[in-house]
Amino acid sequence: MGISEFDLIREFCQGATRVRADVLLGIGDDAALLRCSPGRELVMTLDTLVAGRHFLPDADPQSLGHKALAVNLSDLAAMGAEPAWALLSLTLPRADSAWLAGFMAGFSRLADAHEVQLVGGDTCSGPLAISVQLTGFVEPGTALLRSGASVGDLVYLSGAVGDAALALQLHGRGEPIAAQQQRRLDRPEPRLQLGRRLRGLASAAIDVSDGLLADLGHLCSASGVAAEIDCAALPLSPATAAWIGRDGDWSLALAGGDDYELCFTLPPSRGEALERELRGLDVAVHCIGRIGAGQGVSAILPDGSRYTGVQTGWDHFR
Amino acid sequence: MGISEFDLIREFCQGATRVRADVLLGIGDDAALLRCSPGRELVMTLDTLVAGRHFLPDADPQSLGHKALAVNLSDLAAMGAEPAWALLSLTLPRADSAWLAGFMAGFSRLADAHEVQLVGGDTCSGPLAISVQLTGFVEPGTALLRSGASVGDLVYLSGAVGDAALALQLHGRGEPIAAQQQRRLDRPEPRLQLGRRLRGLASAAIDVSDGLLADLGHLCSASGVAAEIDCAALPLSPATAAWIGRDGDWSLALAGGDDYELCFTLPPSRGEALERELRGLDVAVHCIGRIGAGQGVSAILPDGSRYTGVQTGWDHFR
Repeated sequence: MGISEFDLIREFCQGATRVRADVLLGIGDDAALLRCSPGRELVMTLDTLVAGRHFLPDADPQSLGHKALAVNLSDLAAMGAEPAWALLSLTLPRADSAWLAGFMAGFSRLADAHEVQLVGGDTCSGPLAISVQLTGFVEPGTALLRSGASVGDLVYLSGAVGDAALALQLHGRGEPIAAQQQRRLDRPEPRLQLGRRLRGLASAAIDVSDGLLADLGHLCSASGVAAEIDCAALPLSPATAAWIGRDGDWSLALAGGDDYELCFTLPPSRGEALERELRGLDVAVHCIGRIGAGQGVSAILPDGSRYTGVQTGWDHFR
Repeated sequence: MGISEFDLIREFCQGATRVRADVLLGIGDDAALLRCSPGRELVMTLDTLVAGRHFLPDADPQSLGHKALAVNLSDLAAMGAEPAWALLSLTLPRADSAWLAGFMAGFSRLADAHEVQLVGGDTCSGPLAISVQLTGFVEPGTALLRSGASVGDLVYLSGAVGDAALALQLHGRGEPIAAQQQRRLDRPEPRLQLGRRLRGLASAAIDVSDGLLADLGHLCSASGVAAEIDCAALPLSPATAAWIGRDGDWSLALAGGDDYELCFTLPPSRGEALERELRGLDVAVHCIGRIGAGQGVSAILPDGSRYTGVQTGWDHFR
């Protein structure tokens, strides 16, 4: 392929159309130059997706472009932040214009939807991997942290869990995957609107990427508390509910990973305020449990027994 | 190996000791939380190093930790920026505590020397690769850009070029490599002090990572000018000068890459001001050529002929 690194970078520019007033200098110099809004704090995250680990090597490039940005947007959603600037580093086995066009279409569409501008990055050849760094803003002192949960707080979850893991299960068995599950795996919708509305309301928040038990466990650990989940209250799609109903294994919902929903805690006194804030939101939110004293997370199954399956969640060195 | 992703992240925390007052929340939540100094612009870069492409797979981990940060610091030096916060994403074939301890020692030592704090990132398993994202500051309107060179400006270069490329050449031939060349390849010293002093003085600047001709070419292209280099004026180490003297091939110095020196342009009227600014600096600076009208970069060899070798520089899809 005759395409060079610099041609690739030029293609990035064209693919990413959004122009923000706070970008003084985007792609094309040694670094990007940006104006920080006075009186706001910066929120920064960096995530890498590796072929064969986070996605199948033959994954649709458009979905990959979406997902590489979505997992970072999800981190900012969990902080209650408003996203602004992205840097992208692409390692590709070869310069493939069609693949790149698809990737940038998926990336740019999601970036535009959230007013994110791609301001720099690099490309090189090697085993397929994608790093996205994302910066956003939050008003001083309003960031949602993992560490604020207190005994007695209620635990909430957005959307539903288990669909992405169900899609992976079905793929592994060579069984057909319904469009809804495939979409949940390939094109997670970061809950930015919800995260923004939770500022000043939720006592703690985290995004569910490694599995509900594992991520709620991180929140509990940071807050010095324990949590109990009522599985009967867990929001599930009909397909995931049917799968769990068939073999009685709740691992899909509790330890599946790749959900990119928000899990947050709320003092019970703020229940009505939450109801008001959620009006007109694009995603449902359910109360799924309660914070208690101690440590760790337990899940009570609908028959009253305690879930004893995998609890460690997705560990990239497992 | 029993080490988990979260253990690795905790090791990062311990390895990186520097604590900056503008870091409100570092490693451990969904994202880092940072305070932006009022009245300063942000400068951001992201670079990935891939095993077998940017470094040998058996490279010393301590040198790799140094170099992964150094290449990003070099980008900020070329903008005249002061570095502040780093995010690190590590993809490792396996969780190897000894490798990681070495890597973090090299990374942290350079970070501490430049008052950089590691504030977040991630780890996953896969083919060895390292992404570092670095953010720094610059006073409004003072960033050094590639685009400001004018006809008649002089071209300057810091340090010397060709040593890293010489080390790679010798390695490829299985010949012994002197400590100086090995060090220039493994542990480049980013020219941050020089970059800061050039603000308000240099008309344009770039860091030399892909080879002098290629990078000066980017500067000329961004500025809409041409450049002519006088090879007799090029700063070379004795070893590189001897190599070139032996076979007459100037490619090492002109197209070698991995030098991480600064190349900048200066109106001749500012020559004395430059002399003053350079007093006490840790690196020498030499005038190596002049900006002219037109486009492209030509290099005049000591015998008066024009260099006609490789001019495209390091292209990661070559």
